[in-house]
Amino acid sequence: MKLSDEQLQQFDELGYVMLPDIFSLDEMAVVNGDLPRIYDMQRDEVWRESSGAVRTAFAAHTYSEPFDLIGRHPRLVEPVQQLLGGKVYIHQYKINAKAAFDGDVWQWHQDFGTWHRDDGMPEPRAMNIALFLDDVTEFNGPLWIIPGSHKEGVLEAGHDLKTTSYPLWTLDNGKIAELANEHGIFSAKGRAGSVLMFHSNIVHASSPNIGPWGRTIVYLSLCHVDNHITRHKRAEWIAHRDFTPIDIANDDCLKELARKAVAAE
Amino acid sequence: MKLSDEQLQQFDELGYVMLPDIFSLDEMAVVNGDLPRIYDMQRDEVWRESSGAVRTAFAAHTYSEPFDLIGRHPRLVEPVQQLLGGKVYIHQYKINAKAAFDGDVWQWHQDFGTWHRDDGMPEPRAMNIALFLDDVTEFNGPLWIIPGSHKEGVLEAGHDLKTTSYPLWTLDNGKIAELANEHGIFSAKGRAGSVLMFHSNIVHASSPNIGPWGRTIVYLSLCHVDNHITRHKRAEWIAHRDFTPIDIANDDCLKELARKAVAAE
Repeated sequence: MKLSDEQLQQFDELGYVMLPDIFSLDEMAVVNGDLPRIYDMQRDEVWRESSGAVRTAFAAHTYSEPFDLIGRHPRLVEPVQQLLGGKVYIHQYKINAKAAFDGDVWQWHQDFGTWHRDDGMPEPRAMNIALFLDDVTEFNGPLWIIPGSHKEGVLEAGHDLKTTSYPLWTLDNGKIAELANEHGIFSAKGRAGSVLMFHSNIVHASSPNIGPWGRTIVYLSLCHVDNHITRHKRAEWIAHRDFTPIDIANDDCLKELARKAVAAE
Repeated sequence: MKLSDEQLQQFDELGYVMLPDIFSLDEMAVVNGDLPRIYDMQRDEVWRESSGAVRTAFAAHTYSEPFDLIGRHPRLVEPVQQLLGGKVYIHQYKINAKAAFDGDVWQWHQDFGTWHRDDGMPEPRAMNIALFLDDVTEFNGPLWIIPGSHKEGVLEAGHDLKTTSYPLWTLDNGKIAELANEHGIFSAKGRAGSVLMFHSNIVHASSPNIGPWGRTIVYLSLCHVDNHITRHKRAEWIAHRDFTPIDIANDDCLKELARKAVAAE
């Protein structure tokens, strides 16, 4: 799994690349099959909206076999290694649920801003790769990205503790309007199994989901091993402290897991 | 201004008709020009979000010359008269602002449900015609409609006094999911000057606006004069008690107003 020159150029210019249909629906079914069990868990890692609906399940690779494979999957890890130029470790692992009717807003923010301020990550040599577990449409809270905003560096931000159940360093409305008027907004939609890579300084947000269809996206935040965090203010399951390079799984690992499950029935 | 047979058939089947570019941008400029004055008013009719941003300016035809003309404009009133089969009066007149960053949700609801329960309107011989004062896009809280849902009649609803600053009879999530899975959702987007007509029993909602672009839509709720309301529980400026048929203005009334304004400068 290698990005083409054209994809590398797009990432450089716009700060994101959309990769449609990277995983098959069969592979997604294996992963989705473990979600009900995870969403039922009462543990710190499973963060809820004020409504009680699951907002984010952190560190799912530590308590779910299919999500462990996703976190080590070559189709996700190799393109990031290519872009960051070396071995990476998992800095953060999130399943963001955006439940039907109840999924709340993610305010406008940059991820590296938080990683730098809260976790002491030295440089933006880290990035997100997102996997759509459901079809993402205009009706279930797609990610909105301001193309080119990664070239702004780390923007001023305030620590928003009020808008949602989850604290976030959020950007000024005036700056968002200025950037969006210059660059527009890209809405990242696609079928289940599609992948979105985006720069850690890209400005992004997502709407509340008032629609009747939920959508789950897995976010792997991968960091170059030489650029690991230096402060441990946040919980270990939010900002990991194990900087061991990812041990990449086989490309057919999800199919293999499905075969094992059938054999065990 | 007459709807074609095809448009009448679409309205009957789907419960809505979209009419693009009915007003010119010059005409819209005349109307938009009065918005800052209206949004600055401190009066009961100008309803605010909990953030303080204007949510709705009711009864703007009573305190704004361009909005009076919109409320009597032949391109809006005549198609409604055609569909309802006779003279109509203004039951409700709303400018819905959906401010950038702050515009709040309109939960899933039917309008006739409210008019019937709160205002004692006998039959759904009333309907909405909406005029887009701004471009409406996927990024500023477009109206979402469930096509065909007007055939369900008045659905069960609960009086939601909590979600936003404005009380609303809202529908059950299970019913919304059932209808949307059957019929899909239509997102009503279009350029400024476009018009959307929709049945008073259509199920609809709109998202909060987290984007940097506001969007204002005028909603005329017009009722057949024989079907006027019978209960006066809500304020006069929310549910009007003057059942006089609309005195239709000239087609060029907005251009004329602009000419007068230039001459007076």
